[in-house]
Amino acid sequence: MPRSGAEARDRLERAALELYDERGYDQTTAADIAARAGVTARTFFRHFADKREVLFHVEAGLQEEMARALAAVPDDVPPLAAMLQAFRSMAPGMEANRRLAEARHRVIAATPALRERELAKAAAMAATVAAGLRARGLSEWHATLFAQVGTAALGHAVHAWTADPSADYDDLVVRTFAALRELADPEPDGRPASVAGPGQRRRSDHHEDHRRDHET
Amino acid sequence: MPRSGAEARDRLERAALELYDERGYDQTTAADIAARAGVTARTFFRHFADKREVLFHVEAGLQEEMARALAAVPDDVPPLAAMLQAFRSMAPGMEANRRLAEARHRVIAATPALRERELAKAAAMAATVAAGLRARGLSEWHATLFAQVGTAALGHAVHAWTADPSADYDDLVVRTFAALRELADPEPDGRPASVAGPGQRRRSDHHEDHRRDHET
Repeated sequence: MPRSGAEARDRLERAALELYDERGYDQTTAADIAARAGVTARTFFRHFADKREVLFHVEAGLQEEMARALAAVPDDVPPLAAMLQAFRSMAPGMEANRRLAEARHRVIAATPALRERELAKAAAMAATVAAGLRARGLSEWHATLFAQVGTAALGHAVHAWTADPSADYDDLVVRTFAALRELADPEPDGRPASVAGPGQRRRSDHHEDHRRDHET
Repeated sequence: MPRSGAEARDRLERAALELYDERGYDQTTAADIAARAGVTARTFFRHFADKREVLFHVEAGLQEEMARALAAVPDDVPPLAAMLQAFRSMAPGMEANRRLAEARHRVIAATPALRERELAKAAAMAATVAAGLRARGLSEWHATLFAQVGTAALGHAVHAWTADPSADYDDLVVRTFAALRELADPEPDGRPASVAGPGQRRRSDHHEDHRRDHET
């Protein structure tokens, strides 16, 4: 029997992830998770509101970390570079939670009902980033727009990271933001954008890596 | 009594919007809407699955319109400009539905439970745009990233448009995409970005309008 609260919580989380993978999310109950972890159902509910929260409980912590990370970027760093710097600074925490992130990715992919919770989480993170950008002097209009765009890019990077166990969070964030710059960088001669990338079907003259100097 | 199906549908929609504004969304039932429209509850359910769908039924049509609009953009237009062109081409349809869009905006702002539906709608639109970008030759990775970023920007513009009855959809889309370009355009001398805009608190040297040549 686990003694400390933190130990019980870790065991419950591990048990939940195992069961979601083995049986599927819908076929797993809080009681199942408690039994697998060797604790009572009451202990489960002391740590998590329901079986869904086992997957999402790190969210509040991540938002606080994001707010701190953005506040730590020097004032003279422009908005896109500031977001990139903040997102990169979260790499150690993200890599430490990779197992949970991967499991959440698998469970959400297999459980459409969880998708709404994931979208709400992304919206809350965008609001956190917008607040951080307003604190850097941006107008409400710009802060909201840039936060939505920046967190959409972050979400894309995190999705790719959780889908590939060999992928590196920091590398994906850097590559995603480099692609963002390519997207927005107008070609002065009006030729097709250089952003079509390696998977393109009709354009082959450029590659996403050809402007590494834009990365940061 | 309305004769045609289309007439009944329009009356139901108008009645629903009136009631949502008068009583609030939660306090309105499908039967209330039918009564106000002068039709039976059965007629209501022939047109809408539930009272929520009165607000969201245009969604499927909008996605088809978006797919067509993107497909109509010439192949040699780069991704960001292609999205801007497609989004701008939807202006007549958007302006024609302004009353519904404004009502939805008010109801969603007052009804947190509808926010999830709105987020799911945005995710579905991003998937439609991603499919359109893949059809233009972009890789899956680029198409998904650019679609998420582009629809985040579009959502920002639509939100501002529905919140201000005097605002012009096309103007807001153009300004939003201009701001996107400013966000990504690195300042060669490393000075603060020019994007902080009119609402900024600490920076006043630039304005979002100072690079109009980037707009399209």
